[in-house]
Amino acid sequence: MCIFCKIVAGEIPSKKAYEDDKVLAFYDINPLAPIHILVIPKEHIRSAAGINETNEALAGHMIAAAAKIANELGISDYRLISNIGPTAGQTVEHFHIHLIGGVDMSKRML
Amino acid sequence: MCIFCKIVAGEIPSKKAYEDDKVLAFYDINPLAPIHILVIPKEHIRSAAGINETNEALAGHMIAAAAKIANELGISDYRLISNIGPTAGQTVEHFHIHLIGGVDMSKRML
Repeated sequence: MCIFCKIVAGEIPSKKAYEDDKVLAFYDINPLAPIHILVIPKEHIRSAAGINETNEALAGHMIAAAAKIANELGISDYRLISNIGPTAGQTVEHFHIHLIGGVDMSKRML
Repeated sequence: MCIFCKIVAGEIPSKKAYEDDKVLAFYDINPLAPIHILVIPKEHIRSAAGINETNEALAGHMIAAAAKIANELGISDYRLISNIGPTAGQTVEHFHIHLIGGVDMSKRML
């Protein structure tokens, strides 16, 4: 079982930011900014590259969850990032969207 | 009409990467990497913050479109970014997902 599947299963603890039947969001243990949350599908999907017509609703639900979390945290400005593959910086092979806020990111995107 | 709505309407030209009835993807005119494509909904939505239960399917369809484009371009490693608000680097107020590839992004995320 991958590390994020273990978090979903409760075998590894996490600081939860949001949860419903399809999605879990928790604080990154190595935050890059004051707010750094990972939104993941409970189902194991390797990356966003595994999203197609059959499961795109789940990916959309992850974005809606991110928007809801940001709204609840009271942040209007934030960045959503998903890395696909090691060269893009993906380190855990379970689809996740980084929600990053609380820092000025206007000067730099990469 | 916003600049991206004008691109959807064909009033401003773009180099298309993908199009269907709900989504348009085109090459960024100021690319940050060898591959830099913007995936947008044809419908005007200000940012990912405007995604909720009623329109999350559309956001998921954008991610599926990004995965499809990357697959067609033959890139396995890429990054998807969406900025919400000026402090996060959003410069056009029409929801868009950056698809960035062809460059090593493993060392840096912000």
